[in-house]
Amino acid sequence: QSSSGFDHKDTEPSRPKRVMIIGGDGYCGWATALHLSKQNYEVAIVDSLVRRLFDHQLGLESLTPISSIHNRVRRWKSLTDKTIELFVGDICDFEFLSETFKSFEPDSVVHFGEQRSAPYSMIDRSRAVFTQNNNVIGTLNVLFAIKEYREDCHLVKLGTMGEYGTPNIDIEEGYITINHNGRTDTLPYPKQGSSFYHLSKVHDSNNIAFTCKAWGIRATDLNQGVVYGVTTDETEMHEELCNRFDYDGVFGTALNRFCVQAAVGHPLTVYGKGGQTRGYLDIRDTVQCVELAIANPAQPGEFRVFNQFTEQFSVNELASLVTKVGKKLGLDVKTTSVPNPRVEAEEHYYNAKHTKLVELGLKPHLLSDSLLDSVLNNAIRFKDRVDTKQIMPSVSWKKIGVKPKTVSAYSNN
Amino acid sequence: QSSSGFDHKDTEPSRPKRVMIIGGDGYCGWATALHLSKQNYEVAIVDSLVRRLFDHQLGLESLTPISSIHNRVRRWKSLTDKTIELFVGDICDFEFLSETFKSFEPDSVVHFGEQRSAPYSMIDRSRAVFTQNNNVIGTLNVLFAIKEYREDCHLVKLGTMGEYGTPNIDIEEGYITINHNGRTDTLPYPKQGSSFYHLSKVHDSNNIAFTCKAWGIRATDLNQGVVYGVTTDETEMHEELCNRFDYDGVFGTALNRFCVQAAVGHPLTVYGKGGQTRGYLDIRDTVQCVELAIANPAQPGEFRVFNQFTEQFSVNELASLVTKVGKKLGLDVKTTSVPNPRVEAEEHYYNAKHTKLVELGLKPHLLSDSLLDSVLNNAIRFKDRVDTKQIMPSVSWKKIGVKPKTVSAYSNN
Ligand SMILES: NC(=O)c1ccc[n+]([C@@H]2O[C@H](COP(=O)([O-])OP(=O)(O)OC[C@H]3O[C@@H](n4cnc5c(N)ncnc54)[C@H](O)[C@@H]3O)[C@@H](O)[C@H]2O)c1
Ligand SMILES: NC(=O)c1ccc[n+]([C@@H]2O[C@H](COP(=O)([O-])OP(=O)(O)OC[C@H]3O[C@@H](n4cnc5c(N)ncnc54)[C@H](O)[C@@H]3O)[C@@H](O)[C@H]2O)c1
Repeated sequence: QSSSGFDHKDTEPSRPKRVMIIGGDGYCGWATALHLSKQNYEVAIVDSLVRRLFDHQLGLESLTPISSIHNRVRRWKSLTDKTIELFVGDICDFEFLSETFKSFEPDSVVHFGEQRSAPYSMIDRSRAVFTQNNNVIGTLNVLFAIKEYREDCHLVKLGTMGEYGTPNIDIEEGYITINHNGRTDTLPYPKQGSSFYHLSKVHDSNNIAFTCKAWGIRATDLNQGVVYGVTTDETEMHEELCNRFDYDGVFGTALNRFCVQAAVGHPLTVYGKGGQTRGYLDIRDTVQCVELAIANPAQPGEFRVFNQFTEQFSVNELASLVTKVGKKLGLDVKTTSVPNPRVEAEEHYYNAKHTKLVELGLKPHLLSDSLLDSVLNNAIRFKDRVDTKQIMPSVSWKKIGVKPKTVSAYSNN
Repeated sequence: QSSSGFDHKDTEPSRPKRVMIIGGDGYCGWATALHLSKQNYEVAIVDSLVRRLFDHQLGLESLTPISSIHNRVRRWKSLTDKTIELFVGDICDFEFLSETFKSFEPDSVVHFGEQRSAPYSMIDRSRAVFTQNNNVIGTLNVLFAIKEYREDCHLVKLGTMGEYGTPNIDIEEGYITINHNGRTDTLPYPKQGSSFYHLSKVHDSNNIAFTCKAWGIRATDLNQGVVYGVTTDETEMHEELCNRFDYDGVFGTALNRFCVQAAVGHPLTVYGKGGQTRGYLDIRDTVQCVELAIANPAQPGEFRVFNQFTEQFSVNELASLVTKVGKKLGLDVKTTSVPNPRVEAEEHYYNAKHTKLVELGLKPHLLSDSLLDSVLNNAIRFKDRVDTKQIMPSVSWKKIGVKPKTVSAYSNN
C-alpha cells in the first residue's frame, strides 16, 4: 500500500497521482491530506478557512489546540520533506477555483469543503441560506472545473448517511431496485434530509448524478456516517499537526461530544428518547476509505455511491459505552435526557448497507474500549480548555427565525 | 364557483381570500392572477420582471406583443374595477419579500417565480449557478417568510413533471410505497432531474418537504407538465391583457413551438428520435388546477404533491397532430429531426399518474383539433413577428462551458 500514490501504467513513466483536497484544513480533510501525502500522493489543500471564522463568530474553539494551516504544512514538510501545496480561497469563487485546477492539475479531487453542521444550518435564515448556497454552488463549480479543465479527474465527494433519513426499510448504497405494478427499475434511493445542511448534500448528490450522465464525469459519493476519534498516525507525529476536535453543541458530533462531557463531569446529553440510530466510523477509517476510493476510481459517467461507516449505534448505546469506559478511568458518568432540539424520529428501524468499501479492502477499526479509552484520555488531557457553556444544544429546529442570531459571550443561548 | 374567492366560515364575516402570486408577470402567473382576481380572490403579484430582462439579453421576444405589468394591472382595473396589487422586487431579497408579506398578509402563496427554462440553465456556468441560486434561495425565503409572518398560509409551489425523469416504472404523485427485504415504507418518489433547472425544482421539493415536517408548513407541490395554449377567458378581454407566448429555442415549449414553426413554414424540429413522452396541459387547466389547490388547502405539516397535467404525448405524436391540423388550414407542414441538444432517453416507458386534481374537480380541456386550430391561427396572426433565427435549438447539454456565452444578434448560435 505504501506505493499506492504511484501510477504504474505500462506506457507512462510512473508519476505520483495528484490529489486535491478541498476542505483540507478541516477535521476529516486534514487527516486525509496527511495520510495521502504519506502514501506518496502529490497533495494540494484548497480551503477558504471559513470554518475557523465560524468558530470565531460563535465563540467556539476546538478542544485540541490547532495550528494555522500555514504552520501545519510547514511542519509536515520539515518532518517528512513532503510538500503539501496550499491554495487559500473560496470554491464558490470560480476564478479562484479555475486557477487551482490549472496550476495543480489534479487526478482526483476529494471534496470535503462544505459547511457541515446541521445545527449551524438551523441557527437563522441567513445561515440556512449560506449553507445551501456555499455547498450547492461550491460543488457545481467543482463539477464545471472538472469538465472544463480535467475531464478525466475523479471526484470523490463527501456526502452523509443523514441524506437517507430513517426509512422503515433497509438503506442501500445509493440505489434501490423497485418492483412496482409489474415493472422494475433501479432508481436513486429516496432521500429525506432533516436539516438545511443534510438537504444541501441531497442537492449535491442530485447535481453530481446529472453531470455524470450528461458530461461523463466520474464520481464517488461517500455517504459518510458520524466520525469519531482524534488521532491518525500522521497527526500524532507532532503537536503542530494535531487535528481539530469539536465538542460544542453546534459542530460537535455525538460520540466525540460524549467523551468531552464525561471528561469534565457534565452529564451526557441524550436528545429525547435516545433511540436515534446512525452509522459511525473512526477517523482512521475515513482516511482509509478515501484512499480506497481514489485508488479504485469510478468509471467515466459513473455515479458511484458508498455508505462510509463501519458500525451502527443508537445514542443510548453510545452513552452506555462511554459510561462503562469512563468508570474504568475513574469518571462518574451520568446521563441526562434533554429536550430534542431537532425534529427527528427518536425510535425507528435502521439497517444500512455498507459493504462496498469493505469489498474494496476496508479493514475497519471497530469501536473498542481501548479506542474510547484514548479518546476519553485525550479529552481529560485538554479538559481545562473546555468551555462548559458550549455543551448544551443552543439551536432549535423549530425556533429558527429570520433575524440574524447573535451569540452572546455570557449566556447559553 | 364564482364565489370561491370568499371564505364562508360560520364565525367570521366572509372576507375574500388573499392570494399572492409570485412570478405573476409570467406566462402561467399572469393567466392565474387574472383568473383568481375574476373569481373574487384578493390578488397581489410579486415579480422581479427578470424574465423580461432575460428576453432582452438573449434578443428574444414573445410572439404576442405584451404590455408592461403596470399597464396590464391598470387595464384590468379599468375593465373590471378589480385591483391587483403589484410588488416589483426579487424574492431572493428577503427584506423585500418580508415587506410584501407584512403588507399583503396572504392566505395562499402561489409560487411561479423561478427561472424556468431548462436550456437557459444549460447556456453557461453562470446561468446554471444563477438558476439554482435564484430558485432554491427564493423558495427558501418564501418558506421562512411563511414561518415568520403567516404560519397558516398555504404554499402552492410550481414544480415540474421533469423532476421524475423517465423511470421504467409508473410515476406516482410524489410518493411511492416500496416493499423491500420484507419491509414496507412510503417514501418520496425518486427524482432524476435532467438539467440544472429541473434539478433546482428537485432541490425545492426536498426543502419544502422538510419544512412541512419541521415547522408545520402546509404545502402543495404542483408537478406541472408542459403547458400549451395562449388565451384564457380573462386575457382575451383586451389586447393589453394578452399573455406571453414563447416559441424560441430557449423558452419555447414543445407544442407552442411547433405551432409557430408550422405557421411560418419552418419544419417542425423533432429532437432525435422524437419518442420523448411527457405530460401536457392547456393553460386554461393551469389556472383551474391552481384554483383547486387553493380552494382545498393542504393540512398544516402536509407536503402534498399533485401531478398537474391532463394527457401524455410523445414529440412525434405532437408533430403529427400539428401536421394534420395545419393541413386543414392550408399549411404545408414538414418535420425534421435535429440532433438532440439535450441528454435524455429518446424512447422510453412513460406512465404518470394524474388523478388527484381530477378528484378535486378538475375538468380537463383535452387537446383537440379546435384548440390546435386556435393556437395555430394565433401563430399565423403574429407570424410577421417571428424571428426565424430563434427557432433552432442553440444550447447544448454537453457543450456548456464556463465562459459567459454572449448571444450574437447576427447568427444562429
Ligand atoms: N465530521 C463528521 O462526522 C462528518 C460526517 C459525515 C460527513 N462529513 C462530511 O465530511 C466533510 C468534512 O467534514 P469535517 O468534519 O472535516 O468538517 P470541517 O468543518 O472540519 O471541515 C470543512 C472544511 O471545509 C472548508 N470549507 C467550507 N466551505 C468552503 C468553501 N466554500 N471553499 C473552501 N473551503 C471551504 C472549511 O474551512 C473547513 O476547513 C464535510 O463535507 C462533511 O459534511 C463529516
Ligand atoms: N410553462 C411551462 O410549460 C411550465 C411547465 C412546468 C412547470 N412550469 C413552472 O411554472 C412556473 C411559471 O412558468 P412560466 O412558464 O410562467 O415562466 P415565466 O418565465 O413566464 O414566468 C416566471 C416569472 O417569475 C419571475 N421571477 C423569476 N425569478 C424571480 C425572482 N427571484 N423574484 C421574483 N420574480 C421572479 C419572472 O420575472 C417571470 O415573470 C415556473 O416555476 C415553471 O418552472 C412551467
